[in-house]
Amino acid sequence: MAISNLESRAFTKLFELSPYQSGVLSGLTFGVKDLIDIAGHKTGAGNPTWESCHTEAVCHAICVEQLLSNGATCKGKTMTDELAFSLLGENFFYGTPFNPKAPDRVPGGSSSGSASAVACGQVDFALGTDTGGSVRVPASNCGIVGFRPSHGRISVGGVIPFAPSFDTVGILARSEKLCAEVSYVLLASEEKADVVEEVLILKDAFAMADEEVRAALEPALKRLQQTYPIRQVTLEDIFDFEATFDAIRQVYCTMQWAEVWSSLGAWIENSRPAFGPLIAAHFELAKKCDRTQIAEAVQKRVIIKNNLRSLLGSNSLLCIPTTPFLAPKKGSTAVHRSETLGFTALSGLASLPQLTLPYGQSREGVPVGLSFLANHGNDELLLRAFSDV
Amino acid sequence: MAISNLESRAFTKLFELSPYQSGVLSGLTFGVKDLIDIAGHKTGAGNPTWESCHTEAVCHAICVEQLLSNGATCKGKTMTDELAFSLLGENFFYGTPFNPKAPDRVPGGSSSGSASAVACGQVDFALGTDTGGSVRVPASNCGIVGFRPSHGRISVGGVIPFAPSFDTVGILARSEKLCAEVSYVLLASEEKADVVEEVLILKDAFAMADEEVRAALEPALKRLQQTYPIRQVTLEDIFDFEATFDAIRQVYCTMQWAEVWSSLGAWIENSRPAFGPLIAAHFELAKKCDRTQIAEAVQKRVIIKNNLRSLLGSNSLLCIPTTPFLAPKKGSTAVHRSETLGFTALSGLASLPQLTLPYGQSREGVPVGLSFLANHGNDELLLRAFSDV
Repeated sequence: MAISNLESRAFTKLFELSPYQSGVLSGLTFGVKDLIDIAGHKTGAGNPTWESCHTEAVCHAICVEQLLSNGATCKGKTMTDELAFSLLGENFFYGTPFNPKAPDRVPGGSSSGSASAVACGQVDFALGTDTGGSVRVPASNCGIVGFRPSHGRISVGGVIPFAPSFDTVGILARSEKLCAEVSYVLLASEEKADVVEEVLILKDAFAMADEEVRAALEPALKRLQQTYPIRQVTLEDIFDFEATFDAIRQVYCTMQWAEVWSSLGAWIENSRPAFGPLIAAHFELAKKCDRTQIAEAVQKRVIIKNNLRSLLGSNSLLCIPTTPFLAPKKGSTAVHRSETLGFTALSGLASLPQLTLPYGQSREGVPVGLSFLANHGNDELLLRAFSDV
Repeated sequence: MAISNLESRAFTKLFELSPYQSGVLSGLTFGVKDLIDIAGHKTGAGNPTWESCHTEAVCHAICVEQLLSNGATCKGKTMTDELAFSLLGENFFYGTPFNPKAPDRVPGGSSSGSASAVACGQVDFALGTDTGGSVRVPASNCGIVGFRPSHGRISVGGVIPFAPSFDTVGILARSEKLCAEVSYVLLASEEKADVVEEVLILKDAFAMADEEVRAALEPALKRLQQTYPIRQVTLEDIFDFEATFDAIRQVYCTMQWAEVWSSLGAWIENSRPAFGPLIAAHFELAKKCDRTQIAEAVQKRVIIKNNLRSLLGSNSLLCIPTTPFLAPKKGSTAVHRSETLGFTALSGLASLPQLTLPYGQSREGVPVGLSFLANHGNDELLLRAFSDV
């Protein structure tokens, strides 16, 4: 590709780690989000104060070890939003990784550099982390494939803890097939013969999305109907309480803010780090979270989880737009962020796997992702449905 | 009870936190393992260097918030083995919490103070953490009830990360009923009507246990037969590879050591903490873990997980002795530790819930726990089977 590493701003550090042995990923290169440990390098988390407060990692994260043991070559660390606390991909201190398919728009975050490096062709795939959408949103914005696994299936050993009941290691890749192959390695998948029997279209999500997102995804939905039996469902069908995306987002935010403050509050109060204005505002929300509301949020989360899991059963997928609007223009304020969280919180709250596919583009060519969720543990069903591997 | 707080050595700090409101746990008191955050107090993790390197927690852990919102009163922080890295319960720096039912024996660890505080009647229940047996072993040693939930069901937000793919918050309580009531709060359980259809007795585990453990549990197994249909199974029935408890333990240790070093290695290398000799040896194993073996261990773990989950289905339980031998005498070396891990690793590797019940005692009156495992997510099935609530 014509885009240099300097131009893409995708990498924070370039180096090469050779694989331990050949394997199913031999010949493939990958980048690692700078929230994930690589021995001998500081895990910078996209924030200068964090970097200055911490020392070099003493070992590679578990997920990195798995890739090196299966033949892949690591090419460096990729940019992240500060402490992973944004879906935009504009780092106040280090700049904005390039989105080659929409150069005037943000790449999305927080795995901004991982998405950019893959979209620019600088690596074959990249590791990201996804707590509230940090793999899925940048994959959608950059027109590539992004996978968030079932919570707990890929080890987060060696990843900076953020909101542990939501934190996952995810994969960004150029193609469905490559994404599946890498994911099978990290999931240590065994053979499974299951096939998708039905795809459930969440009508409210499409209705709530911007017109240009709906239009961009229409051809993909038509093709989908030729492959799988389709059924339209609504939030009201799924949940036995009055569920809106706003209500779902609120449950998510209470729990995420509470866990984030548990993970990072002491460091913030003691180190008084410099944050960009958006990230500072997010941490202020985490700090001010009313912790007497946590117990109720946990209860609501369990209801959401149980209802979604009942709906999905063993062989169904749920289909939503990955985000309700196009990637925002660079430098614009993040007016829409909360709406995106309503969509991305579904898999987070229910610990479900989600795959975003670059199936749409707007009239001006801006990428639009289409997402599929499967039941907890059905990662292989989901990956195979769109990759044939 | 006649045992003072000073005599029990169960608590590292005494204070009182009132509940936010009344609730299902009103009138009940609890202790919190000193690996779990309480705002305004250092989380000491049983190690003086750790305590001196860290500042006061800025907020309560998620699980503590849930209990305070449901009417319970917190009475203080309880002793832990250093950084939770032992199953013995003898802290080199702070001493050994009292085991009232076997005063010359260790309480078990690492949630030693939580087990002791409950067994001594100083609180109604206590929070512990369980990565490789740290709730189940001390509950068994002290003759009380201990519950390790399905991994991921109770938030570890505000708990010091140790080996994240195994870390859980568990409950220690005097009775099955109380353990279930507290667990339902933390799990935010909804009503479920499932009942146990079959209990599978893992023959190899009973065969491998010491004679006095087998004898102590025989009456309980006879009673069990009057309640549930029983079937004998062997490791060979469950696993399609040559599985021994030793092989299972090795898979567990590789993964646990690898994750522990990811979580704590940088702190240890930089702070050079003083550890007791046993804990120092454990961390040396974590440091020396051959990380090129991680990928293979993850694969074996998935096979163990899939096989165990297939065996258990929706309505079965698996029954094993909690530990293969009686609580060791105080001050003896930990010759048996590795054998215990073979038993306790089953639920850890497969992320299953496990309940240990004080169903046996040796001829000299030493408590012996009997354990039941259920499928992932079947925590309520398991708790209800033995509590009728």
